[in-house]
Amino acid sequence: MAKRKLRMGMIGGGSGAFIGAVHRIAAQIDGQVELVCGAFSADQQRSKDSGEQLFLPSERCYGSYEEMIITEQELPADQRMEFVVIVTPNHLHYPAAKLALEAGFHVLSDKPATLSLAQALSLKTIIEQSNCLYGLTHTYTGYPLIKHAQELVADNTLGTVQKIVVEYHQGWLADQEAESGKQASWRLDPSQSGISCCMGDIGVHAANLAEYVSGLTISKMCADLVPVVPGRQLDDDGTVLLRFNNGAKGALLASQIAVGEENGLRLRIYGDKASIDWSQQEPNTLWLKFNDQASQMIRTGVGQFSSRVQSAIRTPAGHPEGYLEAFANIYVNFVEQVRLFQQGELDAASQVDVPDIEDAIRGMAFIENAVAASNSDQKWHNFTI
Amino acid sequence: MAKRKLRMGMIGGGSGAFIGAVHRIAAQIDGQVELVCGAFSADQQRSKDSGEQLFLPSERCYGSYEEMIITEQELPADQRMEFVVIVTPNHLHYPAAKLALEAGFHVLSDKPATLSLAQALSLKTIIEQSNCLYGLTHTYTGYPLIKHAQELVADNTLGTVQKIVVEYHQGWLADQEAESGKQASWRLDPSQSGISCCMGDIGVHAANLAEYVSGLTISKMCADLVPVVPGRQLDDDGTVLLRFNNGAKGALLASQIAVGEENGLRLRIYGDKASIDWSQQEPNTLWLKFNDQASQMIRTGVGQFSSRVQSAIRTPAGHPEGYLEAFANIYVNFVEQVRLFQQGELDAASQVDVPDIEDAIRGMAFIENAVAASNSDQKWHNFTI
Amino acid sequence: MAKRKLRMGMIGGGSGAFIGAVHRIAAQIDGQVELVCGAFSADQQRSKDSGEQLFLPSERCYGSYEEMIITEQELPADQRMEFVVIVTPNHLHYPAAKLALEAGFHVLSDKPATLSLAQALSLKTIIEQSNCLYGLTHTYTGYPLIKHAQELVADNTLGTVQKIVVEYHQGWLADQEAESGKQASWRLDPSQSGISCCMGDIGVHAANLAEYVSGLTISKMCADLVPVVPGRQLDDDGTVLLRFNNGAKGALLASQIAVGEENGLRLRIYGDKASIDWSQQEPNTLWLKFNDQASQMIRTGVGQFSSRVQSAIRTPAGHPEGYLEAFANIYVNFVEQVRLFQQGELDAASQVDVPDIEDAIRGMAFIENAVAASNSDQKWHNFTI
Amino acid sequence: MAKRKLRMGMIGGGSGAFIGAVHRIAAQIDGQVELVCGAFSADQQRSKDSGEQLFLPSERCYGSYEEMIITEQELPADQRMEFVVIVTPNHLHYPAAKLALEAGFHVLSDKPATLSLAQALSLKTIIEQSNCLYGLTHTYTGYPLIKHAQELVADNTLGTVQKIVVEYHQGWLADQEAESGKQASWRLDPSQSGISCCMGDIGVHAANLAEYVSGLTISKMCADLVPVVPGRQLDDDGTVLLRFNNGAKGALLASQIAVGEENGLRLRIYGDKASIDWSQQEPNTLWLKFNDQASQMIRTGVGQFSSRVQSAIRTPAGHPEGYLEAFANIYVNFVEQVRLFQQGELDAASQVDVPDIEDAIRGMAFIENAVAASNSDQKWHNFTI
Repeated sequence: MAKRKLRMGMIGGGSGAFIGAVHRIAAQIDGQVELVCGAFSADQQRSKDSGEQLFLPSERCYGSYEEMIITEQELPADQRMEFVVIVTPNHLHYPAAKLALEAGFHVLSDKPATLSLAQALSLKTIIEQSNCLYGLTHTYTGYPLIKHAQELVADNTLGTVQKIVVEYHQGWLADQEAESGKQASWRLDPSQSGISCCMGDIGVHAANLAEYVSGLTISKMCADLVPVVPGRQLDDDGTVLLRFNNGAKGALLASQIAVGEENGLRLRIYGDKASIDWSQQEPNTLWLKFNDQASQMIRTGVGQFSSRVQSAIRTPAGHPEGYLEAFANIYVNFVEQVRLFQQGELDAASQVDVPDIEDAIRGMAFIENAVAASNSDQKWHNFTI
Repeated sequence: MAKRKLRMGMIGGGSGAFIGAVHRIAAQIDGQVELVCGAFSADQQRSKDSGEQLFLPSERCYGSYEEMIITEQELPADQRMEFVVIVTPNHLHYPAAKLALEAGFHVLSDKPATLSLAQALSLKTIIEQSNCLYGLTHTYTGYPLIKHAQELVADNTLGTVQKIVVEYHQGWLADQEAESGKQASWRLDPSQSGISCCMGDIGVHAANLAEYVSGLTISKMCADLVPVVPGRQLDDDGTVLLRFNNGAKGALLASQIAVGEENGLRLRIYGDKASIDWSQQEPNTLWLKFNDQASQMIRTGVGQFSSRVQSAIRTPAGHPEGYLEAFANIYVNFVEQVRLFQQGELDAASQVDVPDIEDAIRGMAFIENAVAASNSDQKWHNFTI
Repeated sequence: MAKRKLRMGMIGGGSGAFIGAVHRIAAQIDGQVELVCGAFSADQQRSKDSGEQLFLPSERCYGSYEEMIITEQELPADQRMEFVVIVTPNHLHYPAAKLALEAGFHVLSDKPATLSLAQALSLKTIIEQSNCLYGLTHTYTGYPLIKHAQELVADNTLGTVQKIVVEYHQGWLADQEAESGKQASWRLDPSQSGISCCMGDIGVHAANLAEYVSGLTISKMCADLVPVVPGRQLDDDGTVLLRFNNGAKGALLASQIAVGEENGLRLRIYGDKASIDWSQQEPNTLWLKFNDQASQMIRTGVGQFSSRVQSAIRTPAGHPEGYLEAFANIYVNFVEQVRLFQQGELDAASQVDVPDIEDAIRGMAFIENAVAASNSDQKWHNFTI
Repeated sequence: MAKRKLRMGMIGGGSGAFIGAVHRIAAQIDGQVELVCGAFSADQQRSKDSGEQLFLPSERCYGSYEEMIITEQELPADQRMEFVVIVTPNHLHYPAAKLALEAGFHVLSDKPATLSLAQALSLKTIIEQSNCLYGLTHTYTGYPLIKHAQELVADNTLGTVQKIVVEYHQGWLADQEAESGKQASWRLDPSQSGISCCMGDIGVHAANLAEYVSGLTISKMCADLVPVVPGRQLDDDGTVLLRFNNGAKGALLASQIAVGEENGLRLRIYGDKASIDWSQQEPNTLWLKFNDQASQMIRTGVGQFSSRVQSAIRTPAGHPEGYLEAFANIYVNFVEQVRLFQQGELDAASQVDVPDIEDAIRGMAFIENAVAASNSDQKWHNFTI
């Protein structure tokens, strides 16, 4: 292992940006990453102010990501950033990732990966032509009990998966007043957010989680996306009926107008022998249920887990970890991947559990297929890429 | 109030029948009803054996409902049964109700009311031509907090209803072995059960509950009903997208193959000001949630309720009531209705909160529309009666 | 089994009395008992009014328990009551039970059994000299999962019991205004309630439950009973440190002034291999916990139970039963005991799971020892009878 | 605010030490602290190995805290550590803190502060004679909803506090096998742990939390501490009856042998108007309960909080924070205090919410009073310092 922290540059995430602060915590929590520079805002002064609060030298707080990438390239190899994290609104993900990759920087991007499926496919080519790694922060896959759930499915504890219900309910966009907020305005603007708000922002997390844990892929969809609050251009609520590649049924419910819901991501997978149930708001509990015997309440840190799951846990049982630690697990793995890559261990690097460009493509395809399915009068729409 | 208990006859519900025993408890719990006779089985001896265990005289244990209705008619007015409860498999609901009503007996029927919508419509005519009352045991509307939830919607505590999610998940039919059981076999047989298993058995409860609490009616459906377990003629799982008459969105998820689920009926209604959340397995808790203030955990018996809700509660706070008491609340109200009717107070009788033929018709229409919607390649199907 | 219901007379329980109505429901729910007479109130007219609402003939509604017992004795054997249930304030339990037993009626009494330990010991002699049965309604032992918990301890699933924590928290007596209520006034009056309010009303339930489930008996106590609300003669809150006869530690927390608590009876028993946790407000769930494996959430009706536990369950999984059904389980067992007794099967009768005079004595001893322990400056007080 | 991170040195916390890693995360999570040196182990090589994994230069990984303090003192002011955190077993807390303070370094110490009350009192004098700050990591006071609970008590939402129940149940020391583990062995050794294991390790947290939230102080105790597992020199379980300075009753239950319990710290405070209930394992939920209205489920991030509470929250509602973030809140406040101190704003520094030497003294007094109370045959023991 390298005897030093990896050097990270940040694009976006200036003062007041929720997700920027979350990324910085996630990067720092395990002491493996050092933030060395940032293009925190398109406003030069705001970028410098943001960097100053983060104890960065003024000269490494840039007014644009283009400037950052070009300037950092010129720095000595032992000083310049080694990877960039992109935490801007969606429409900048692709151009920023493209420029960084082409300049030789590894990229860790917030989701959704791009503004469109076409961009995601294009990004794949760019990655292949670069000598760089690309990761995507599908945060919820970072929870240890989600990884354990994945293993329970894989080892056939559930039997054949017959049905999946995944829901992601939030309430914060329930009325028009919400739209004035910084978090809301860009998400509801197609030019910054893409063709979907609810599916692009949270539905894609739900779909990713269902596929990640079940090991299945969505093959057909019947979608009902609408802007519930009048006047919106993009959906703020969507329900999608699903078929998976093994024939299993599914339903995905996502909403940003479900008043009183906080961040209600919940996944249930029903096999013919057992089922699992996990809720993000109580992430240290995973239910394993049976028809004919007592349910098991699996808790982070109680009992035996695989070393892969165990390594995603920092505290003993009963000392709750949460969203930031799950996020940090994405970073830890990405950092490990970069280190292996830097050491030339490419095969090992490729085995590390980090959401990658394939997940990015599936995510963008999910969004575009959901919108197409919703626009269709036909019930079933084949999921295509 | 009458100075005596009402005399009840029972059709179906012999030894080993789950729902018959439940009805008897529900009828007896408040001491307002006396079981005086029964046609508990089409097997004369089994009927007598069942009746004997219930302390009934042998001569009032009949081998068929036809025999019972004819014989009881001949008894003196102060001895013969005053109403019948029908707890047979579905296909007998209609003929038994018809005969009883035509013979002048009030009817309380298990759901679904009939085998088809046409039968339900026919039943309405029969009721109108009789001088009798007809009630339907949509049990879950008997819970006090469901009635309170209804009032919260009606008094606009939630604001405009924007979204309804109702789910009813069971796991007991998850595999083929289950089919040999007494409860399973008739439900999966179209000749006894009708055109749907899952929607007819539990989906209809979910739809009824959503409409009862919200005060809205379903106007459009997109349905995905399937037999998940191979070889079944009827659906054992169904998901339905909904539109309500005010434009609100909805989703109804029902399953009998969701391994590990017991009797997971849950209703969430999201208004633009607040939302409610209620689960049948913890029926003494009702959540009232907001975006911008603490959620309220409303508990049976804590705080103020309307007299209508209060009268549905038998115990002080923290002494849990459950399914049988909810069921009993249907009986109590039906008994009150019969008493008012007997006293000639027809208007008052019509005001009592008992599921009636209109609910029966909507229930059968729900089942038939769900099946039609599921069979259609078009996404949306208009709910018609 | 007898081909008829058992005939019950009730002492106390007139209109407005919470516990009288509960007893009637518990007696009636399973159709094994017929209420035939009552001395519902010391006021002749109130007793008749109460009985009228219960559809009793006026002549069997008595103005005193003495009148009832004397008059019923004179009735033909196939008409007169067969047992009495006593649901008065505490001070009448003993004289009413005494008179009934001496007149040849079986007795089912509410708890605490008597006003003092001396009365309970005297009652034991009376029972032995009678040819009658005596039962005590320690309701909470009627819950099926409590019986299952008892079996888990007995079969050593928990290993050696090392620690027991039982708590019973209510809030309804938290202020002086509460005292004007009917339920409160007699409980706070030593002449009707005895030497303790909180320990006599609810602490004794907690102690009984701990001993019932663990199979252990309390051997030493250190008690801290106080009237928290000023001006009260009796305790409204009490904490008791315990030692059990096997050396296990324990703590019993009871309160009637714990604002916001409903009927918070909870039992935790920690063995050296596993522990159990049960809460009365969610009675259909029993936790079985381990240090090194997933907790098990045992649910009423899911999985295998002994026939004894199974017979205490009326509904399938997920159809919640509650307090009234637990209460009814006491009645069902008492009725079975009376029937076996009437059939001369005395040994079988003695095996039925009904709280009896020994429980009554231990309950009164618990109350008196708790008060003595609380009054002592010495830390530990030996539990004596 | 300083334009740089504060420089921290660590005493203890080498590889494999649970609490050392926790401290490092807590220090790093908000990017305000830089670990610059450490005496991670008394073994020089192990200390260097530990430091290497933390990317520290070898020359700043010391073989003893004495060496570290002396050597760092000699470094230029802009390089040497500014404060030390002490995360050793208990017996080293005092000598390490003493040496650091006398050498002019601020100290943040794990709890319990010292091995005895006498040491804690001595430490107070040392602090007063130094020009340094001293903080104590009573982690659980760092949770935002604990701070909010404190405000609810202070603003009289609960009315007069009448009763406090605080419990801290763990199961990990339930058998003798546990003793061989690194975490267990020193805690059960009086020479490293002091005169109590259970009270010193977790009881002191419970007492601190009760006093912190209620604003009251313990005035009398009746204690029952024992080693449940045979052969232990120190208690592994303890129950303590309490009186607070306003006359309120209390009970503190702590155990390390409660099999199946993880880290079950729970605080309930009952006023005469309302009560609160908080459990560390679900730290983002705080219950506010009433006798006569619906309970409120207060959630981190939902609704309005004071700026002090709000500043302890990093994520939006529904994105759970946990133990590490609570710990980090102690660090953030200590860092703020140090910065204010460095800027000469002594008054402002003294106002920052950091557990200090007074808490340390009360904690040690709690432990010693609990042991003395437990050793006494008298029921009540006055809490003295």
